[in-house]
Amino acid sequence: MDAVSVTDASGFSANGLHCGIKADGALDLTAVVAERSVPAAAVFTTSATSAPPVRLSRGRVARGSARAVIINSGSANAGTGAAGLADAEEMSAALARELGCDPEDVLVCSTGPIGGRLPVDLITSSVPDLVAGLGRDAAHATAAARGMMTTDSVPKQAVRSFGDWTLGGMSKGAGMIRPDMATMLAVLTTDAEIRPDTLTKALGEAVDVTFNALNIDGCQSTNDTVIVMASGSSGVTPALDAVTDALAEVCGDLSRQMAEDAEGASKVVTITVTGAGSDADARRIGMTIADSSLVRSSFYGADPNWGRVFGAAGVAGVPVDPDAIEIAYEGTVVASGGVGLRVDEDELSSRLQGDFDLSIVVGSGPGRARIVTTDLTPEYVVFNGERS
Amino acid sequence: MDAVSVTDASGFSANGLHCGIKADGALDLTAVVAERSVPAAAVFTTSATSAPPVRLSRGRVARGSARAVIINSGSANAGTGAAGLADAEEMSAALARELGCDPEDVLVCSTGPIGGRLPVDLITSSVPDLVAGLGRDAAHATAAARGMMTTDSVPKQAVRSFGDWTLGGMSKGAGMIRPDMATMLAVLTTDAEIRPDTLTKALGEAVDVTFNALNIDGCQSTNDTVIVMASGSSGVTPALDAVTDALAEVCGDLSRQMAEDAEGASKVVTITVTGAGSDADARRIGMTIADSSLVRSSFYGADPNWGRVFGAAGVAGVPVDPDAIEIAYEGTVVASGGVGLRVDEDELSSRLQGDFDLSIVVGSGPGRARIVTTDLTPEYVVFNGERS
Repeated sequence: MDAVSVTDASGFSANGLHCGIKADGALDLTAVVAERSVPAAAVFTTSATSAPPVRLSRGRVARGSARAVIINSGSANAGTGAAGLADAEEMSAALARELGCDPEDVLVCSTGPIGGRLPVDLITSSVPDLVAGLGRDAAHATAAARGMMTTDSVPKQAVRSFGDWTLGGMSKGAGMIRPDMATMLAVLTTDAEIRPDTLTKALGEAVDVTFNALNIDGCQSTNDTVIVMASGSSGVTPALDAVTDALAEVCGDLSRQMAEDAEGASKVVTITVTGAGSDADARRIGMTIADSSLVRSSFYGADPNWGRVFGAAGVAGVPVDPDAIEIAYEGTVVASGGVGLRVDEDELSSRLQGDFDLSIVVGSGPGRARIVTTDLTPEYVVFNGERS
Repeated sequence: MDAVSVTDASGFSANGLHCGIKADGALDLTAVVAERSVPAAAVFTTSATSAPPVRLSRGRVARGSARAVIINSGSANAGTGAAGLADAEEMSAALARELGCDPEDVLVCSTGPIGGRLPVDLITSSVPDLVAGLGRDAAHATAAARGMMTTDSVPKQAVRSFGDWTLGGMSKGAGMIRPDMATMLAVLTTDAEIRPDTLTKALGEAVDVTFNALNIDGCQSTNDTVIVMASGSSGVTPALDAVTDALAEVCGDLSRQMAEDAEGASKVVTITVTGAGSDADARRIGMTIADSSLVRSSFYGADPNWGRVFGAAGVAGVPVDPDAIEIAYEGTVVASGGVGLRVDEDELSSRLQGDFDLSIVVGSGPGRARIVTTDLTPEYVVFNGERS
C-alpha cells in the first residue's frame, strides 16, 4: 500500500486541487483537516521579513490548537504588507466557513515567488470544492502533498507506526533549482494524544536535528513552516521522548527526500561534526562548512579538499582546536592532528562521485551534529540566474 | 610615474623574487623592510584555525613595532601544526639574520594552498638575495606585490599623498578563481609619525569599511593579514581621524582592485544598506545579502529579483522593518513600503549587465553600511570544483 502520510493517522482528511494560480494547471491548493479542533504546534521561519501567512499562523497556533491547515503554492504572499495579511485572513476565513469553525482555528501557508499579491479570489472560490473532496486514501494524501509543490519534482511523504499510534507527514521545498520559490513547508499528523506543550517541545527538538540540519543553499525563506496536529483518536499518550523520536524519524525521512530532490545539485553530502564544546557549537561548525561556496564547489568536483573544510571550520565563531582537527571523507582520514596525511587522492575522489559522508573532529568536547547538504553546481547558478 | 606603493613613503624598501615554490617560475617571495624598527599594527583573520604565520605575527606585532615583513606565496603554511610554526619562525629568523635585527621584529605572511608543509629551505636559501636586492623604485615595489600573488591576474598597488606625508600599500587575493589560495594580504607603509595605539585604532576602523566590507564568496581564510608600518621619516604627526581616513582611502582603492580582479565573477555589485538600527546591524544585513548564493546568482543573471534581497535581509539576525523596506537597483526603486512596484524589468535588466549598485532601506534607524561583492557565476563553481 502506498504511504498515505497526513491521513494515515485517524481523525484527519486531506485534499489538493488546481485553483488557478499555477499557469500550467498543476495542483496549487491544499487542505489538511481534523475532525475537530485538536492540539497543534508549529515551528516557523525566524526571518524578520516573514510572510503575512506566517505572522497570522504564528499568532493562532500559540493558542495550542487548530482544526485545519490551508496551503497554496504559486505565490508566497510575502513582501505584500498589510494587504497580504488581509489576503491570508480571507483565505483562512473561506475554509472556516466551509468547515463551520472559528477562523482562528485555521492555519495558513503560502509558497512561491516573493513579492506578488495573492490571487485570493481564485483560492476562496475553490475552497468549497476543496472541502467537498476531502478524503483519507493515498490519492487524497498525495494530492495534498502535490498541491503545495513548487519546483519539487516529486511529492514527499512519510509515515511511521509505533504500535498503537501513527505519525505521518508531507513536505515540500528547500533544495530546488529556484529556492526563492522553495519555502520549506511540512504538515504532520498523529492520532496520539499529546498535550500542546509536549507537542511544541518535541517538534522544536525534532526540527532542530532534521529540517534545520538541512542546508541546501544557506537560505532560510520568508515562509518556512512546520505544523503538527494530534487528533488523540488512538487513545495512546506517548511520553515526550517517544514523541520527539517519532517526529525526528518522520521529519528526517522527509528531509532526506528533500535533499535528494535538490534539482540544482548532483549529490547529497552528510557532514558529521564531533568533539565540539556543545551540540550547538557542532551545529554551527557544520552549518558554516555547508554554507561555504568553496567547500560545496569541491563536493561537486569530487575533490577531497580538506583544506577548505579546515578553513571553513575555523570561521564558525565557536571554539575549535586546530591541532586536534581530524577530517575524513567516506571513512578515509585525510587530515589528523590538524595536519594532512598522504592518501591516494585519485582513489578517494572516485568514491566521491555520488552521495558521500564527510566527518570532522574539532576537539575533545561532547558536542556533535549532523548536517545534510548538497554540492554547488554550475547548473544551480545558471538556473538561479535566469529571470523568472 | 608608476605608483611605487609600499616604497613611496620614505624609510622603506622592498623586493620580490622567485625562490622556487611556484612551479611556473613566478615570483613567490617578498620582503618589505624599514630602516629601523618602527611603529606597526596589524589586523588578522579571526579564524579559529588561523595559520602558524598568523599566530606568530599576531604575538610579535602586539609589541607595537616591527622592522620587516617577509611573505611567501605558493603555500599557506596552514593546517601544518607545530612544524608549521617552526617553519614560520625559521623563515623570519633568516630575514632577521640578513638585516641584523631581532627575529621578533620580523612579521611573517604565507599564502597558497592549505595543508602542505612550507618548503622552508627554498625560502631561507633565497633570503640573502632578497635582501641584497632591496630597492625603492617602482620595479621593486611591483616585484614585491607580485611575490605575494596567487591567482591574482594583476598586482594591486595604491598610494596617496597628504601634503607632507604619504601612505602606500599593496594587496593580493580575496576574489580569485580559487579562493582557497586567495588569502587576503596587504602591507601598508607611511612616512608619518604615528604611535602604535593610534595606528592600531585607525587600521581597525579602516579595514572594517574596506577589506572587511568586501565579500566575494563569504569565505574568510586561515591567513588573512593586513599590516601597516609607520617610519616617521616625514616628521608629520597626523591626527587619528586623518590617519583613519588615509588608511580607508588606500585600503578602499586596493579592495576595489581586488573585486575587479575576481576571476570567477563577471561584475562588481556595491550594496548599500541604510535605515538599520546601527552601522553594525546594517553591515550584517549587507553581508547576509552578499552571502546569499541565490542573490548572487540573480546578479549574474542581471535579474532585479528583489524578493531574494528581501528574503535575505530578513535572516541577518538583526531587526528589520519589513513594511519599511525599499529596494533599488541602479537608482530604480523596485519595492517600497515592503511591497513591489511596477517597473520595466527588461529595461532595468539591461542596466544590470555590468557593475551596478543595489540599495536597500530597512527602517528609519541611523545605521548604514556599504558592502562590495560580485556575482556568482557557473565559472566560479567549475573552477573551484577542479582538483588542484
